[in-house]
Amino acid sequence: MRATTIHAPGDIRVEEVPDPTIKRPTDAIVKVVAGCVCGSDLWPYRGENPSQPGSTIGHECVGVVEEVGAEVTGFRPGDFVIVPFCHCDNTCPHCVAGVQSACVNLGMTTSGQGEYARVGQADGSLVATDGVPNPALIPSLLALSDVMPTGWHAAVSAGVTAGGSVVVVGDGAVGLCGVLAASVMGAETIILMSRHENRQQLGTGFGATHVVAERGRSGAKLVKEITGGVGADAVLECVGTDDSMGTAFAVARPGATVGFVGVPHGVELPVGKMFQKNVGLRGGMAPVRRYLPELLDLVLAGRIEPGRVFDLTLPLDEAPEAYRAMDERRAIKVLLQP
Amino acid sequence: MRATTIHAPGDIRVEEVPDPTIKRPTDAIVKVVAGCVCGSDLWPYRGENPSQPGSTIGHECVGVVEEVGAEVTGFRPGDFVIVPFCHCDNTCPHCVAGVQSACVNLGMTTSGQGEYARVGQADGSLVATDGVPNPALIPSLLALSDVMPTGWHAAVSAGVTAGGSVVVVGDGAVGLCGVLAASVMGAETIILMSRHENRQQLGTGFGATHVVAERGRSGAKLVKEITGGVGADAVLECVGTDDSMGTAFAVARPGATVGFVGVPHGVELPVGKMFQKNVGLRGGMAPVRRYLPELLDLVLAGRIEPGRVFDLTLPLDEAPEAYRAMDERRAIKVLLQP
Repeated sequence: MRATTIHAPGDIRVEEVPDPTIKRPTDAIVKVVAGCVCGSDLWPYRGENPSQPGSTIGHECVGVVEEVGAEVTGFRPGDFVIVPFCHCDNTCPHCVAGVQSACVNLGMTTSGQGEYARVGQADGSLVATDGVPNPALIPSLLALSDVMPTGWHAAVSAGVTAGGSVVVVGDGAVGLCGVLAASVMGAETIILMSRHENRQQLGTGFGATHVVAERGRSGAKLVKEITGGVGADAVLECVGTDDSMGTAFAVARPGATVGFVGVPHGVELPVGKMFQKNVGLRGGMAPVRRYLPELLDLVLAGRIEPGRVFDLTLPLDEAPEAYRAMDERRAIKVLLQP
Repeated sequence: MRATTIHAPGDIRVEEVPDPTIKRPTDAIVKVVAGCVCGSDLWPYRGENPSQPGSTIGHECVGVVEEVGAEVTGFRPGDFVIVPFCHCDNTCPHCVAGVQSACVNLGMTTSGQGEYARVGQADGSLVATDGVPNPALIPSLLALSDVMPTGWHAAVSAGVTAGGSVVVVGDGAVGLCGVLAASVMGAETIILMSRHENRQQLGTGFGATHVVAERGRSGAKLVKEITGGVGADAVLECVGTDDSMGTAFAVARPGATVGFVGVPHGVELPVGKMFQKNVGLRGGMAPVRRYLPELLDLVLAGRIEPGRVFDLTLPLDEAPEAYRAMDERRAIKVLLQP
């Protein structure tokens, strides 16, 4: 099959690789209808995370079941499915507790930017739509494989409540989905920290009531003004750098929780300040499967349109350009069509 | 008045110091009936925190109101009161949100190991009993000024629930009160990590269902066995060292929260592990005033007896011996009688 591979930092190729096959009887093979590039794919692209030269890349996709293993009972070839980037059996104690991202049978999609992807624990992982969806819905369904549940997880972890105030640190696709999540949850004040006009606009469209372009201390000062001198009830940290984490703690009111979903890179948590202000931290890799039924309902009911984070669509063969566009911030998030 | 002072690490004295006086119209002066030594007093005693030579020490006490400032309306001389170690107006936005330990008018008791103590924001801070309490209740009422609400805060911060499993890291008086809190909250499995027999016994008396004497990896392994291979639903970190924090994260199940109330000393939080396991951290200085009404009811109803943490009572003049006894772990917590 054709699939996107990474050979070195900055070296993204689309080439022939072996088709994925059923390795375990609980696996399924999905023919990818749409995949995309994740902000976290930019870490190895930028050389900030190691990568195995020649390995496939891409963990987000939706598609049609092509083949299932002998033990898969809930899905059959032809089903249109959303593929959570993290695979889970949905029955182990961690899954039952709602932490499917710590499943004892955890797996990952590894060729979401390709023609086919293997899904482990298919019965536990996949969620099917009723019939083949309207093509206009594909971007929003694709967003359910990672970015929207991740923004949602930030909001859940931060304890967003109806009527409360929320700050979202990070205006990438995850942060924008965090805005959307906070809006659905009924937050009254949603402050997006963003310096990019197109992202500010989408954030406002997703429900942000305020945009703060300043960073660091001046940004925190503005947030404090907007929140009546108190700070935010909940903070969504959607980047993963030490700077963004510092901003998150600076804008949190005493007693608040920072929900974090950006994979931490070089973060040193300010434990003394956390103690002094009673500001907590919760989050991590999103338990996508946990949120999927609710989020799918919201998409199908037209209540959320997370697919709007895709502001560029390219054929799979142009994956290298997709990475460049996101790396250079010319695109928020790029959808790839095999 | 006679009061305990610290002159240098290890140099505790009881000497004459000026009586505290009303400085602001919202102050009250309390004649101390009982004070005590806190685990956190051992930090300066051991030279691990700086101290001002000759300053008074001690932030926990109960007593009788001696004098009130012109603006104090809720208390009058003769009232028997519990004095939260952190003073608060109980009306600012942080207090209203239940974070009285971040009050905009925050203050601290500074001569709780003395004959008199000044209390700032008396109307917001103090809680009176109905009449003069039975002397047998004094230790438990004294425990409400800090140690019991602090253990309670650890349990609240960790999200202890009825039927759940809890690990308490730290067998000092705060950890033991954390056990008591988890028990009142209905936790089914309460594992106290403790190597000291007298503390194990008191912990069991407070509701611990299991005691784990091992530390580090072997301790974590035992906890995992007790919790069916899963880890604890909630963890109370009641020490504040890097080792104890590491143990807390090691025994937490994915999705759990570590509630921390030990002032952090040299702690580096394992942010990568927190992300990977979705284990959160919440806590800090306890908002004593928030919990006082509920805890006072529990004490008066005979449902909790946190005063059992005092296993040694000394006259105020023997404060130096009180510090030695706690430093050498000959006593869990020492009550001082002026």
